[in-house]
Amino acid sequence: MADKFLSISRRTRQTPFTPRVESAGVQGYTVYNHMLLPTFFESSEADYWSLCEDVQVWDVSCERQIEVSGPDSERLIQLMTPRDISKAVVGQGLYAPLCDENGNVVNDPVLIKFAPDNWWISIADSDVRLWARGLAFGFGLDVEIREAAVWPLAVQGPKAQELVTRVFGDEVSGIEFFRSKMLEFHGKPMMVMRSGYSKQGGFEIYLNDPELALPLWDDLFAKGADLRVRAGGPNLIERIESGLLSYGNDMNFTHNPFECGLDAFIDLDADIESMSLPALRTIKGKHLHQLVGIVFDEAVEFDDFKIEVNGKVVGDVRSQVWSPRYRRFLTMVMMKREFLSANTNVNINGKLGKIVDLPFDFDAIV
Amino acid sequence: MADKFLSISRRTRQTPFTPRVESAGVQGYTVYNHMLLPTFFESSEADYWSLCEDVQVWDVSCERQIEVSGPDSERLIQLMTPRDISKAVVGQGLYAPLCDENGNVVNDPVLIKFAPDNWWISIADSDVRLWARGLAFGFGLDVEIREAAVWPLAVQGPKAQELVTRVFGDEVSGIEFFRSKMLEFHGKPMMVMRSGYSKQGGFEIYLNDPELALPLWDDLFAKGADLRVRAGGPNLIERIESGLLSYGNDMNFTHNPFECGLDAFIDLDADIESMSLPALRTIKGKHLHQLVGIVFDEAVEFDDFKIEVNGKVVGDVRSQVWSPRYRRFLTMVMMKREFLSANTNVNINGKLGKIVDLPFDFDAIV
Repeated sequence: MADKFLSISRRTRQTPFTPRVESAGVQGYTVYNHMLLPTFFESSEADYWSLCEDVQVWDVSCERQIEVSGPDSERLIQLMTPRDISKAVVGQGLYAPLCDENGNVVNDPVLIKFAPDNWWISIADSDVRLWARGLAFGFGLDVEIREAAVWPLAVQGPKAQELVTRVFGDEVSGIEFFRSKMLEFHGKPMMVMRSGYSKQGGFEIYLNDPELALPLWDDLFAKGADLRVRAGGPNLIERIESGLLSYGNDMNFTHNPFECGLDAFIDLDADIESMSLPALRTIKGKHLHQLVGIVFDEAVEFDDFKIEVNGKVVGDVRSQVWSPRYRRFLTMVMMKREFLSANTNVNINGKLGKIVDLPFDFDAIV
Repeated sequence: MADKFLSISRRTRQTPFTPRVESAGVQGYTVYNHMLLPTFFESSEADYWSLCEDVQVWDVSCERQIEVSGPDSERLIQLMTPRDISKAVVGQGLYAPLCDENGNVVNDPVLIKFAPDNWWISIADSDVRLWARGLAFGFGLDVEIREAAVWPLAVQGPKAQELVTRVFGDEVSGIEFFRSKMLEFHGKPMMVMRSGYSKQGGFEIYLNDPELALPLWDDLFAKGADLRVRAGGPNLIERIESGLLSYGNDMNFTHNPFECGLDAFIDLDADIESMSLPALRTIKGKHLHQLVGIVFDEAVEFDDFKIEVNGKVVGDVRSQVWSPRYRRFLTMVMMKREFLSANTNVNINGKLGKIVDLPFDFDAIV
């Protein structure tokens, strides 16, 4: 498909950072949680090297925060996820698939215990707010559920800690992965967490005052000039190389977490009230698909995203990108497990693809 | 904002019609229900005249059909909407806001009674499926809820009836507004309803077999050549002139249906089990905002979509477009009712805007 324009309206919501994203020369957006998400500035590949070598500032406001507060908030959050959240501490983030009563994935957010009886669901691209509200009303739970007035700004890359420290002070270095501190900017405390949708390291700043959006952006760029700070966004090359999943791409509401390789985040034996656990206990080991990587030496064109072998469709290509670092064509494919048990390769129009586990292990591949 | 590219991935889902949309020369898309929605082909204005004078084929697959079936299906649908659905007949469509327990608008779909105990929610842009599933699980309802394998194709414009008759036969002319018939294409029965998101007249064909997507598209274009059939999409100019609301633009989850002027679709006194009615009965007459039109003689640039009078924000511009037919700048604005009770005009940087009711009455305006 040739490049197409995005028609922007109030429905594709702008963010408090949009003026600076625009002046930084954004060229592409996607729409995520009904909000603009910048996808590339210079080019996907140029942005990739900047992210891997220096530091970038990303407007990820579209990671909307669904705030669940009130006496039943922890009960509702636990109901929605098969990951045991009982040991979470205030300020901690937990990657946790949300699954319905059939065991299918509704979203794969980071759950943040912001305070006792106050959880933030930092969502991927589906309206978790509506599901949570439906459940809460149906069960008569004592909770409030709203989209918080919070717009995350990510700072990612090997120089991210240096840059965030220059803006928020020395306390930054003591923040562990998926932990946070409330740090002040212009006298306003906001959550700063070591997290983000790349494997290059970095932080997410949970802006809670839209008036401070442009000052925060400008301060990061003023103090990061010598670090070669650039505007960026979740980078397709980097996130696939790193094996980071994207809800709606690599998995959707028809898949269960075992198919997506999320077994580590399912506490099958926990004594918790989670609506998906009965179904997941039944499904475990019997799921039909598995998300894997398939690595080709050169770019491949798929017919309607299908992996076809001997006239039978055995896989569905969910994500694909050329890796300029490893000089391989990387795909993430939802494959039939039956096929995987007997094959380690596929042949697409004479191009051999090697089937590998995710995340990619480039020492073994290249 | 200058034009930007849309980054397309599996998450921004293609449709069975996408190959033809592409070959027809689509230039812009938006993302709607996580799916591509074509927005313009030649230009917004050229597309507008084609729609108003001839006939267009629109890929509105993104009007996803949330199918609710089972013994409790009608109960669940009624729970979600304050419009009384008890008298609906099979094959009928009903425009019906969905409202939550606070009276806020979750979506404004067309509800279709497809069969007894089988409803389709033809949704605007929010994940109604998740809300419905949350409610159903919470209340323990005996229903199945799924996104149906159905992709609506709209045929809109003054020559739409002629074209759809050529493809589906003479039974088409007997279909009344918001009623449907099951008509065959290539031997496969599919629902054809007199409906669509324009005021130029037309039909929506609910394609239920992706293999027939390209044959259906091609047949419409082959038989419509002398009618000057074109590819199109919901047209910003036409829909604003016609006063058609767009969820996410003109209203969102913070608004109640009275603010949006949807009073006619709220059966406040009905003896029905609808979760929003208690709140709506309390809100009625006391709502703080009202969606109105503001008409300017020339285009106006707003600062951050605000209508500001004497330093106070009194309105939020939700949609705006230049009307080439009426040569007026049309805006749809969520205004404070307090301001409306004392004013019939606003002045934006010296440009006078006349406040009018929706839909626009051009006999009175021009």
